[in-house]
Amino acid sequence: MYSKGGPEDGLLHSPYATRGEMLQAASEIAGLIGVDNVTYDEDVLDHHGHSEWSTSNTPVRAVAVVYPRSTEDVVAVAKTCSARRVPMIPYGAGSSVEGNFSQPHSGICIDFTHMDKVIAFRPDDMDVTVQPGVNWMDLNTRIAGSGLFFPMDPSPTATFGGMVSTNCSGTNAMRYGTMKDWVVNLTVVLPDGSVVKTRRRPRKTSAGYNLTSLFVGAEGTLGIVAEITLKLAPVPADTSVAVVAFPTIADAARAATSLIRSGIPLAALEVMDDVQMRILNSQGSEAVRKRRWDEKPTLFVKYSGTTDGIRSDVRRSTEIIRGVAGDVPFRFARTKQDEHDLWAARKEALFTMVSNRPPGTVVWSTDVAVPLSRLAEIIEISKEECGSLGIFASVIGHIGDGNFHVTMMYDPKDEKMTERVSHVVHDMMSRALEMEGTVSGEHAIGIGKKKCLLDELGDGTIGLMQTLKRSVDPMWIMNPGKVFDMPKDQKER
Amino acid sequence: MYSKGGPEDGLLHSPYATRGEMLQAASEIAGLIGVDNVTYDEDVLDHHGHSEWSTSNTPVRAVAVVYPRSTEDVVAVAKTCSARRVPMIPYGAGSSVEGNFSQPHSGICIDFTHMDKVIAFRPDDMDVTVQPGVNWMDLNTRIAGSGLFFPMDPSPTATFGGMVSTNCSGTNAMRYGTMKDWVVNLTVVLPDGSVVKTRRRPRKTSAGYNLTSLFVGAEGTLGIVAEITLKLAPVPADTSVAVVAFPTIADAARAATSLIRSGIPLAALEVMDDVQMRILNSQGSEAVRKRRWDEKPTLFVKYSGTTDGIRSDVRRSTEIIRGVAGDVPFRFARTKQDEHDLWAARKEALFTMVSNRPPGTVVWSTDVAVPLSRLAEIIEISKEECGSLGIFASVIGHIGDGNFHVTMMYDPKDEKMTERVSHVVHDMMSRALEMEGTVSGEHAIGIGKKKCLLDELGDGTIGLMQTLKRSVDPMWIMNPGKVFDMPKDQKER
Repeated sequence: MYSKGGPEDGLLHSPYATRGEMLQAASEIAGLIGVDNVTYDEDVLDHHGHSEWSTSNTPVRAVAVVYPRSTEDVVAVAKTCSARRVPMIPYGAGSSVEGNFSQPHSGICIDFTHMDKVIAFRPDDMDVTVQPGVNWMDLNTRIAGSGLFFPMDPSPTATFGGMVSTNCSGTNAMRYGTMKDWVVNLTVVLPDGSVVKTRRRPRKTSAGYNLTSLFVGAEGTLGIVAEITLKLAPVPADTSVAVVAFPTIADAARAATSLIRSGIPLAALEVMDDVQMRILNSQGSEAVRKRRWDEKPTLFVKYSGTTDGIRSDVRRSTEIIRGVAGDVPFRFARTKQDEHDLWAARKEALFTMVSNRPPGTVVWSTDVAVPLSRLAEIIEISKEECGSLGIFASVIGHIGDGNFHVTMMYDPKDEKMTERVSHVVHDMMSRALEMEGTVSGEHAIGIGKKKCLLDELGDGTIGLMQTLKRSVDPMWIMNPGKVFDMPKDQKER
Repeated sequence: MYSKGGPEDGLLHSPYATRGEMLQAASEIAGLIGVDNVTYDEDVLDHHGHSEWSTSNTPVRAVAVVYPRSTEDVVAVAKTCSARRVPMIPYGAGSSVEGNFSQPHSGICIDFTHMDKVIAFRPDDMDVTVQPGVNWMDLNTRIAGSGLFFPMDPSPTATFGGMVSTNCSGTNAMRYGTMKDWVVNLTVVLPDGSVVKTRRRPRKTSAGYNLTSLFVGAEGTLGIVAEITLKLAPVPADTSVAVVAFPTIADAARAATSLIRSGIPLAALEVMDDVQMRILNSQGSEAVRKRRWDEKPTLFVKYSGTTDGIRSDVRRSTEIIRGVAGDVPFRFARTKQDEHDLWAARKEALFTMVSNRPPGTVVWSTDVAVPLSRLAEIIEISKEECGSLGIFASVIGHIGDGNFHVTMMYDPKDEKMTERVSHVVHDMMSRALEMEGTVSGEHAIGIGKKKCLLDELGDGTIGLMQTLKRSVDPMWIMNPGKVFDMPKDQKER
């Protein structure tokens, strides 16, 4: 069972409203945005306060979930909550993995399910304005006829509000960058209910502070994203895929580095380890199991451009890889179906693995990113450490960005194992930091990586973030307990 | 002659030190960083407080220019200035055009000439750490053998400190984005002398607030950039250039839009108007005058990729342009010399024009950016308005980004004309805003565009910037009077 409101961190004097005051705020909100748009249902609260994809859950729950239908509704929520010091926790698709939407100080959860409109699609400007509840795959389906698409590819369920707030990316980041590179402007409801638009609609600007990038990746701790204008990219004329198996992950990484340095404009460059490849053979979808995969560290290379251009890129990258790694086995997509099936193997890997996990086990999925030259080394050491646990553990890497994911499955009732898994994860974080990397390449910080972030950036830099946070959210009511903690001197009031 | 310190805005009670106190601070700094690194020479002060490229000069000058040689020296400067409420104005190459380094409240100018070291070049990580005084062309010469380069191309004289602070770009922005996309981390000296590093060295991250992007484009109003780690890009295997003349600028813009939408990975897409093309014929360098240029609106298209890929891209873009604009005259680079000469025509345009300007005239160079679909219209109207003045006026556009520059030359002693030029510029700004654009695509705000920025973003958004500024720089001593003004309630103390 979950706990019913109240702070989790043992503060004698909570800076926040009591449970009664929070409920009062919820009731006021119901009066403002409609009773049908507020729920106190315990199952709903539980669903909004917990994720089975995450190991960073807390037992505390929000007192209510509210469903705004417009920016004005969000303003009403913010004004009510700020008048009563009630924490506000924005909630998108619930697919984040670091406890980003958990509610350690209770408060009111804001679910954007009903803010799912495409406000304006402007193909001639190659941009689109959406509400935060729009799903990125739905958008791409909707605009498919235009020759444009939105090029990030996080979790298939992700919605734009969460994508903005976690600065998501995925396999396309090598070519297209991360979420921050695709946001033209944001309409944000600040904690006190005032509304700002970070800028108008130019694709390029050097006018004033980059507020857009301040809110992207802030995990809802500075304000509530209510409208998002996104750049769109032209669909490439053609694409193709090659898959190459290597004796060791270090060989794969060396080949990848040479490819990156060559300047060939790759669309994506991914690596999967032997464990992942074994899963494709045993548990992949029908399309994937048509092939017998080498159970070795494997690079997945995606090309895009004109058909002739790709042919030339494939030829040149084959030479480069053979020059580095010798006569390794290549598979090229000969047809569009081939291409689809080869890439499906990469795309379905994580899901296949998680949906086939042994009964009773949970998943710990985490990622780090390091400077390119250190990637092979950290992957090798991390694989070794995971391997020593005797549980299922695999590695998928966005090798073109120096970013990789480790996924482990373990029995959470086995306390010793849980501790060992946690130890391996923290070792991986420390190692990434020793290599001048980051503790989160694309999952943000949430609750799960707060301590690691402090290790990464130090007191001074976190102090500056706290200063900015306090200036925008003096009552510290926006998604409190995430990214970093409230400074001690502010806790007592 | 210039004025010797003291506030310019007629405040009865300046929030800053008196001229005597400022001189005292300079003398203290001399004690800390060496007397040879501080100057009071009036010519030097004048040179650091005025730009002939800018129409946003102020008569006030700093009391001294200081030349730090290390981050520790910068800390000493900041500690001294913050103890005495002395404004600090960072100075790079002095090539900015909006009065970004002018000193309306006097203070101490910090010149980074001696902080010109490449601290670490890491080809395997494709990154480099530099001090702010490094010139971008020097860096590229220095690392030329590595197969890597830094892909922004602002003014040839620009140094990285200023490039960061103005979020510069140039012709390569279409392919490579703007400065903010190339900064991995910054070491910043805050106004009180404390030092923060915005992050470690991952190429990709979603860990905590994006402090890097907050300082990029902040024009030194939040802190002093003392060290910069930059991503580098692989030099493309091959490049080429095509030049296409059109009957009207609207035809050129239509062709450009179709090229952008095609998904062909162009390296750059620039437009020059008939006036600029006429200048190439009459005043271009020898290499450029080898050709007789059509004196019509002209697109300059740069390709990059593999040799075969480019061949295919050129073929496809020719089809697209002919499809949109009919049988317009193309020039393709047949040799590397050809390619160099064709692109030189674009690159030397502004400089040729300014260095051949009529005696007694000054230059007003400004830029805006608008959504892609509006670019042709705003260029046409702006050309018409400039044309009506009967002075020299030309247009160069980074058409791939919706960004264009207007350059006008006029006699500043002619008050009526000065007013008319100013009026045309302000009309252009208003028009860009009506089209949901920005008043500065790549020159930042400085003093010159403060009022326009307020028009662009409104009180609420500027208020948020002021809130952030005040939280980081409570005494408002970092480059005061730039980007936006101090709120009235803070002026009285």
